[in-house]
Amino acid sequence: MPLSVYLENVRIKSPLIHNITNYVTVNDVANALLACGGSPIMADEPDDAEEITQICNGLNINIGTLNSRTIESMFRAGKKSSEMNHALLLDPVGAGASALRTNTALNLMKEIKFNVIRGNSSEIKTLFMGSGKTHGVDASSVDAVNDSNLEYMIEFVKSFSVASGSVIALTGAIDLASDGNKCYVIRNGRAEMGRITGTGCMLSGIMAAFIAANPDHKLDASAAAICLMGLAGEIAFSRLESHEGNASYRNKIIDAIYNMTGEILDGGAKYEIR
Amino acid sequence: MPLSVYLENVRIKSPLIHNITNYVTVNDVANALLACGGSPIMADEPDDAEEITQICNGLNINIGTLNSRTIESMFRAGKKSSEMNHALLLDPVGAGASALRTNTALNLMKEIKFNVIRGNSSEIKTLFMGSGKTHGVDASSVDAVNDSNLEYMIEFVKSFSVASGSVIALTGAIDLASDGNKCYVIRNGRAEMGRITGTGCMLSGIMAAFIAANPDHKLDASAAAICLMGLAGEIAFSRLESHEGNASYRNKIIDAIYNMTGEILDGGAKYEIR
Amino acid sequence: MPLSVYLENVRIKSPLIHNITNYVTVNDVANALLACGGSPIMADEPDDAEEITQICNGLNINIGTLNSRTIESMFRAGKKSSEMNHALLLDPVGAGASALRTNTALNLMKEIKFNVIRGNSSEIKTLFMGSGKTHGVDASSVDAVNDSNLEYMIEFVKSFSVASGSVIALTGAIDLASDGNKCYVIRNGRAEMGRITGTGCMLSGIMAAFIAANPDHKLDASAAAICLMGLAGEIAFSRLESHEGNASYRNKIIDAIYNMTGEILDGGAKYEIR
Repeated sequence: MPLSVYLENVRIKSPLIHNITNYVTVNDVANALLACGGSPIMADEPDDAEEITQICNGLNINIGTLNSRTIESMFRAGKKSSEMNHALLLDPVGAGASALRTNTALNLMKEIKFNVIRGNSSEIKTLFMGSGKTHGVDASSVDAVNDSNLEYMIEFVKSFSVASGSVIALTGAIDLASDGNKCYVIRNGRAEMGRITGTGCMLSGIMAAFIAANPDHKLDASAAAICLMGLAGEIAFSRLESHEGNASYRNKIIDAIYNMTGEILDGGAKYEIR
Repeated sequence: MPLSVYLENVRIKSPLIHNITNYVTVNDVANALLACGGSPIMADEPDDAEEITQICNGLNINIGTLNSRTIESMFRAGKKSSEMNHALLLDPVGAGASALRTNTALNLMKEIKFNVIRGNSSEIKTLFMGSGKTHGVDASSVDAVNDSNLEYMIEFVKSFSVASGSVIALTGAIDLASDGNKCYVIRNGRAEMGRITGTGCMLSGIMAAFIAANPDHKLDASAAAICLMGLAGEIAFSRLESHEGNASYRNKIIDAIYNMTGEILDGGAKYEIR
Repeated sequence: MPLSVYLENVRIKSPLIHNITNYVTVNDVANALLACGGSPIMADEPDDAEEITQICNGLNINIGTLNSRTIESMFRAGKKSSEMNHALLLDPVGAGASALRTNTALNLMKEIKFNVIRGNSSEIKTLFMGSGKTHGVDASSVDAVNDSNLEYMIEFVKSFSVASGSVIALTGAIDLASDGNKCYVIRNGRAEMGRITGTGCMLSGIMAAFIAANPDHKLDASAAAICLMGLAGEIAFSRLESHEGNASYRNKIIDAIYNMTGEILDGGAKYEIR
């Protein structure tokens, strides 16, 4: 199916996504979710998080500014959301940078079955090594994806997907998303997106909406969300004037998501399936 | 008096508003308050909140991302603010969506006398039913305001205002604001404002400034704030280019508040008093 | 050396700055840091904050929405950062407005050696009086800096810098920054920057990056950051259209930081050294 189908489902179903996410980029996550056609809600007090998640269609857990209270909320909402078969995504921000982040992400993975785990190569490598299921992959060679290590990284992502039972989305200059069987290799986006805080967080929120609206096509829907975000970054960049910078770029990316059509998405998505 | 009077008082007095509000939209609340002529301050650690509120002119309590610490701050700052006769507004975000939100809002209403309670029809209905003072109104018929149920909803809002002792502002496609005696019916704004996170939160912050600057005209000042916000939404929409979306719309709404004059407000406000 | 040297070092070294800061303006702080060439990270759970700060080059402590958890993080990360000789900046938001803020800022100063303390005249005066080292300065005369009290305020800032062992940056219509020996008097910026929330917070984040990238020139680097921020405010203001307000102004300031070159900075910086 063309990727536009997955976007149309988000627009039609308008899934309500519960976000337990960091306070740095939370406003952009909310507006990006609204822009793509979803609906955001935030709750991070444990009792409230567990209850609010029940009226939602999906849960996006982002450990960017985790604390003891919100960690408890992540576990409680995550388990409840899992019981109810909601869309469940983990964004392990900073896994590998501190013990608390690494351990929280690994423990969440142990206790909760995530549909998708999305991170950069360093975060995903940390989870892979920490999960103790290396399946013969040489983790020391896991690195940012480029054309030289592409074959290897595809095998790595497939292998980790099998081991974890989650779609693994490893995003960077080249994005990979695999369910263990097939692997999308996506070449949308621009390097300048890294000069804005929160493009990864926004993508995670959007991906949660895409998998909530397309429960039977979680890998394809994840890939559609990645293409959408990258393409929005390309369109927004083409609209930047020479005196504009990362603040305008942020706004124009969200605007481009808002105005994304199925036709633009299908025409602009740059991916192959391996 | 024309509504512009209430705006001019905000501009002249520049009331300092203490906001205990959610972290999703807090930055927009602060900039919207500055745009209308007020001044924002945020404090949500209990001791700090109780002390900071004393140097302010008003308190805006928004339960959007409440937690046990901030709930304590809401009660302590609310009581202190009430003792000092400051402007006091409650925005019961998500009342009805979880027990914690519903109970917190109802308990705040029991222990603190709010000048204004502002919410959508679902939130206001929840508070009405939970407060146990139904005054013969059939709560099951309370719904989003439209031209078919307008008469009924006006009576409902008036009745709840009498029961609660607060101005009740029920905002949606048509906005109602009543002090139990008269009821403003306001038709400013655009549906697209719902595609931005935080337009309700921004309005609550602005309303707190308006009632702080106009202590003897709390209903009229509330209505002026609602017209201002809706009109800003109309002006901003008229300035949107076809490729722009909700991020630009958010910025242009705040910009339109910043540039609002009494003349524009009086000319553009669409309301009747019932 | 021209101020551009200090900016170039930020761009070359891209220092990673740990920010324990308020949730009102944190997104703007992150984007302003990225715009100037630095890199932001946020962590405020005590264990996490202490560990994350170790992989950083600098720490920016801003007490704007402090709470008991984040206060502990400030002390633990601050001490660790100090041990490791990282760049350390304190932004005492609201010192003087509540006991918790005043005492937290004073205790932080007692236990941690900050390279730079940046605040407005009221905050700096509060710290000066609270630190009990008045050195014969008449604190009652400390006020916002203007041309009438300039001589006196320069002496005050120098004196407090000697007493505290920190660069003191007192920002307002005229900005002063002193290491006790020399004092920069800076006249960049516009009054309209005060109608945006967070220009002070953004400046503090940027200053932390500047001192991290220029460890041997902390005063000059601080002055360069102040000139950069003020000049960005001037450039952004010149690009505002008549219908635009504080939301657009915020975005354009960050954009102007992003596009700042050494040449523009050296050409537009308005300062003298006293």
